[in-house]
Amino acid sequence: MNGADSLLAALEHNGVTTCFANPGTSEMHFVAALDETPAVRGILGLFEGAVTGAADGYGRMADQPAATLLHLGPGLSNGLSNLHNALRAHSPVVNVIGDHASYHRDLDAPLTSDIEGTARPFSHWVRTSVDEHALSSDVADAVTVARRGQVASLILPADAAWNELPAAVSPTTAQPAPLPVVDELAVESAARALVEAGSRGAILMGGRTPREDALDAAGRIATATGATVLTSTFSPRVTRGAGRYAAMKVPYAVDPAQELFAQFDTIVLVGEKPPVAFFAYPTKRSTLYQPGTRFIDLTPETPRADIPLTAVLDALPEVVRARAASVQLADMALPQRPTGAITAEKLGTFIAEAIPENAIVVDESITTGWNFNAATVGARPHDWINVTGGSIGWAMPVALGAAIACPDRKVVTFESDGSGMYMPQTLWTQAREGVDVVTLILANRKYQILRNEMSNVGVDVVGDTAAKLLDIDRPTIDWVSIARGFGVPAERAETMEELGAAYDRALATEGPALIEVVL
Amino acid sequence: MNGADSLLAALEHNGVTTCFANPGTSEMHFVAALDETPAVRGILGLFEGAVTGAADGYGRMADQPAATLLHLGPGLSNGLSNLHNALRAHSPVVNVIGDHASYHRDLDAPLTSDIEGTARPFSHWVRTSVDEHALSSDVADAVTVARRGQVASLILPADAAWNELPAAVSPTTAQPAPLPVVDELAVESAARALVEAGSRGAILMGGRTPREDALDAAGRIATATGATVLTSTFSPRVTRGAGRYAAMKVPYAVDPAQELFAQFDTIVLVGEKPPVAFFAYPTKRSTLYQPGTRFIDLTPETPRADIPLTAVLDALPEVVRARAASVQLADMALPQRPTGAITAEKLGTFIAEAIPENAIVVDESITTGWNFNAATVGARPHDWINVTGGSIGWAMPVALGAAIACPDRKVVTFESDGSGMYMPQTLWTQAREGVDVVTLILANRKYQILRNEMSNVGVDVVGDTAAKLLDIDRPTIDWVSIARGFGVPAERAETMEELGAAYDRALATEGPALIEVVL
Repeated sequence: MNGADSLLAALEHNGVTTCFANPGTSEMHFVAALDETPAVRGILGLFEGAVTGAADGYGRMADQPAATLLHLGPGLSNGLSNLHNALRAHSPVVNVIGDHASYHRDLDAPLTSDIEGTARPFSHWVRTSVDEHALSSDVADAVTVARRGQVASLILPADAAWNELPAAVSPTTAQPAPLPVVDELAVESAARALVEAGSRGAILMGGRTPREDALDAAGRIATATGATVLTSTFSPRVTRGAGRYAAMKVPYAVDPAQELFAQFDTIVLVGEKPPVAFFAYPTKRSTLYQPGTRFIDLTPETPRADIPLTAVLDALPEVVRARAASVQLADMALPQRPTGAITAEKLGTFIAEAIPENAIVVDESITTGWNFNAATVGARPHDWINVTGGSIGWAMPVALGAAIACPDRKVVTFESDGSGMYMPQTLWTQAREGVDVVTLILANRKYQILRNEMSNVGVDVVGDTAAKLLDIDRPTIDWVSIARGFGVPAERAETMEELGAAYDRALATEGPALIEVVL
Repeated sequence: MNGADSLLAALEHNGVTTCFANPGTSEMHFVAALDETPAVRGILGLFEGAVTGAADGYGRMADQPAATLLHLGPGLSNGLSNLHNALRAHSPVVNVIGDHASYHRDLDAPLTSDIEGTARPFSHWVRTSVDEHALSSDVADAVTVARRGQVASLILPADAAWNELPAAVSPTTAQPAPLPVVDELAVESAARALVEAGSRGAILMGGRTPREDALDAAGRIATATGATVLTSTFSPRVTRGAGRYAAMKVPYAVDPAQELFAQFDTIVLVGEKPPVAFFAYPTKRSTLYQPGTRFIDLTPETPRADIPLTAVLDALPEVVRARAASVQLADMALPQRPTGAITAEKLGTFIAEAIPENAIVVDESITTGWNFNAATVGARPHDWINVTGGSIGWAMPVALGAAIACPDRKVVTFESDGSGMYMPQTLWTQAREGVDVVTLILANRKYQILRNEMSNVGVDVVGDTAAKLLDIDRPTIDWVSIARGFGVPAERAETMEELGAAYDRALATEGPALIEVVL
C-alpha cells in the first residue's frame, strides 16, 4: 500500500465515491490507485473548470462531497472560477491537487508555483500533506470540512503518493456534518418580530436552505403572520413546482429588487445575509434593503434549515399558529406551448410546460431567462439550480455533476451562448458518461447583459469598438457543429415548433443532447 | 476625462496599443474609454485563457507588453494558467483586472473575492489603484515592470474608472527597459572556463536570449572553444532555420537530457538556471546536470543577451578568438514531403519542408513532436515558440497573440488534441480577427504523455479505469466540426498527401485554418 492507495481508501471509507479528474504526471499514482478502488468512480474532464464545476453540481444535489483531482498550480487555476461558485453555493468539495515531489519543489522546475497561495482565496481549508503517513487523516479532515458545505483543498506531493507505507493503514473516519444549532433567542425574536410586522415582514432564504421542508415551514409561518417568503437570487438550489410552497425569487436587477425590499421593515434571514446589489452602479444604492430594516438571523450551522424554521413555527403565539395549518402550495399549471418566432417570454411559457417530473433545472440563462423563474411556479416538481458566485460558464459543468449525482433524474440546462463559450468541452464528458442532460443554448449572439450594463453605468452611445467587445456575432458561433464535434447530438431551433420537436426528441433519448435556440 | 480615460491615455502614451479583453459589468467604463482611444485596439476573447495566452504570445514576438482586461477574481482565475506560462517566458504583460467599486467591496457581494491574493502567485507586481488620480502613474509603473519581461497586475476599482477627474491629466511616462548590465568578472570567467573546458563546455541559453544575434555570438564562441550551444527545452522563442546558428535543444525526457549533460563539466548560463527535470520520478535524479558541474552565470538584467555574449567573445584570448570568424550557420535543407500513412517521424520531415519563410512556429505538439525541432534545423528561417511553464492549452492563444503582433508573418501552430481541448474557443477570436494562423491538431486521441509517464513512475499495467483517464477517444473528438463551429475553415487529413494538400490550401488563403491530423 502506497500513499495514493491510502488516500483512495480514506475517500472510499468516508463515502466519497466520485472523483472528477484532470490528471497529469504528478498524479499518476493516484490514477493507478483508482484502478484498484472500484468504489471510487473516476470521471475525466478535458479542462479543470469542467472538473470543479461538476463537483459543485454533484455537491448541490447529493449534499455529499465529490473529490476533484487537479494537476499542480495551473491545473488548480483553471478550476478556480467554478470553485468560487461552489464556495458561494456552500457546496461540499474535496480537491486533491497534485504537486511535485517534496524534494523537487525547491528546484523551481517550470511547472512549480505557489499552490497553497493559489488555493487559499477559493478554499475554506488548505493543507499540503507532509508525507504518506499523513494522507489518511488529511483526507478525513478534508471530508469533515466539506461536510460543513465548504471547499477543502488537499495538496498531494508526488512522493507522498508513491512512497510505500510500512503496513496497510486503516482509513481515518471523518466527522459527520454538524447537528443543527437552534438559537432559541433568535427563534423567539423572529416569531415575535414576524407577528408584529405582518405584511411588512419577510423571510429571506438562501444558501442550502430553500429545500422542500424548510420552504413548507416558511410558507406556514408566512400564512400565519402575513410575511412574504423570499429566496435569494443566488440560492444554489431551490425545490419548486407543483405541490411545493412557492417562494418569490429576489430579482437580480437593482431597481426591482429595491422596490421589492421597500415593502419590508423586518427580515428574518435563513442561510442568507442582508441583501446587496450584485454590482455597484454610479447612481444606485449598493444595498437592496430599506435603510433601518430590522434583521433577525436564524442561519443555522447546518443545511437543515427546516429545523430553525419549524422552531419559529412552534414559537408563534397559538392563535397565530393556528392559521399555519392552511398553507397554500403551488397548483400544477401547464400552459399551452407557444408557437411562432422564439422570444424570451415564450420560452418561459414553453418551459413551464416542458420541465419533466422531478427534473433538475440548471439555469445560466442570464438576460434571456429573467422571466423563467416566475413562469415556472406551477411546473411539474423540480429542483432549480441558480448562479451563486457569478463566475461565468458554470452551467454545463454543474449539470454534468448534478446528473452524475442523480442518474435517475432528467437535467435541463439553460445556457447562454456567451456563457457557454467558457467551458464548452464539458459537453465531451457529458457524451462520454452518457448523462441525461438536455442543454438549451439561448443564442442571442451578444453579451446582452453587458449592453444593458453599459447603459446602467451611464454609457448610452456604444461605438463600434465597444460593440465588438459586447457582441459575439462576428463570426456566428455554430453550436450544433461544436456540440457534434464533442460527441453530443445537436439540433438548431428557429421557431417554437422546432424547439418543441427537438426538445421532445432529446428527452425521449437517453444521454445528452443540445439545442441551439436562436433568438 | 474619467479614470478609465486616463488609464487608456497612459497605455497609449506608453506604447501599449493592444488590449486582449474579456470584460464584465465592472469594466464598462474601460470599454467605453476604448471607444474613444482608437490607438489602443481591443480584441475580444471568449474565455480569459485566450486573453492572457494571447498577451503572452504578443509579448514574446513584440518584446513590448500588450494589456489584458479581465473581470474580477474569477475572470483573472481563468487567465492564470497562461499567466504562469507568460511568467516563465519572461513575457511583458500588463493585466488590468476590474474590481467592484471600492465602497462595494466590503459588502461581500457574490462576485467578491481576494483579487490581490489571486494575482500574486502569477504576477511579479500587483497593485490596486487607490482612486482615479492614481491610475495614470499606476499604469506607468505597470508598464515599467512589464518592460523588464515581467507580469504586472493592476486592479481597477469600478469607481476609480468612472469617477471624473477635475481636469485632463497628462499621461505618466514609464521607465524604459533596463540597459544591459555586463558583469565583467563573469565575462572573464566564462571566457577562461570555456577555453579550459574545450568540448566539455556548454553555453545554455534560455529565457528571452536565444535570438539571432546572441545565437550567432554563442556559435562563434563555440566554434572558437569547442563548446556546445544548447537552448533550454523551455525557451519562449528561438530564432532558427537556414542562415542561423543551430543550437541544440535540450531534450524534455530526463534520461536523454542527463546523457547530454554528462558530456559537460562547465556550463555558461545565459538567461537560464542550472537545468532540472520537469517532473520528479521515483527512480531518477531531479537535476539534469552532472554533479560537480561548474556554472558561470552571464544572465543579464535585460533581454539583450547578445551583449554579454559578445563581451565573452571579446574576452577570449586572441588566438582562440581568431577561430570564431568561421562560424557554421545552418544550410537550407528542404526534404521531399513524405507520403502514405501519417507518422510522427514523417510529420517532422514534412514540416522541415513546409515551414514558410519567416514563419512563427508555435509548438505544443507534446509527444508527437519530439523530433520536430531536430528535423527543422535546415528549414526556412523562422521563430520557434516553445512551452515554458508547462501549463496546458497555451498554443492557440499564444498563436493568436503572435499573429496580432506580427501581422505580416504566417503562424503555424502544432497543437495536440488533448491540449487543444483546454481553450478551443480561442479559434473564434482567430476567425474574428482574421489572423493568418494554420493550426495542425495532432490527433492521437489519448494523453500519450501520461501513458508514457505511467510507465516512468513504475506503473506498467494500465487498467480500464486508469485508461479512461488517459485516453480521449470515447467519444472521438471531431476537430473539423468544432473548428467550423467557431468560424474557422477546417479539414481532416488521414494521409501525408491529404495533409500536404490541406496545408497548401490553408497557407494560400488569408485568415485562420485548421487541419486535424489523424495519427
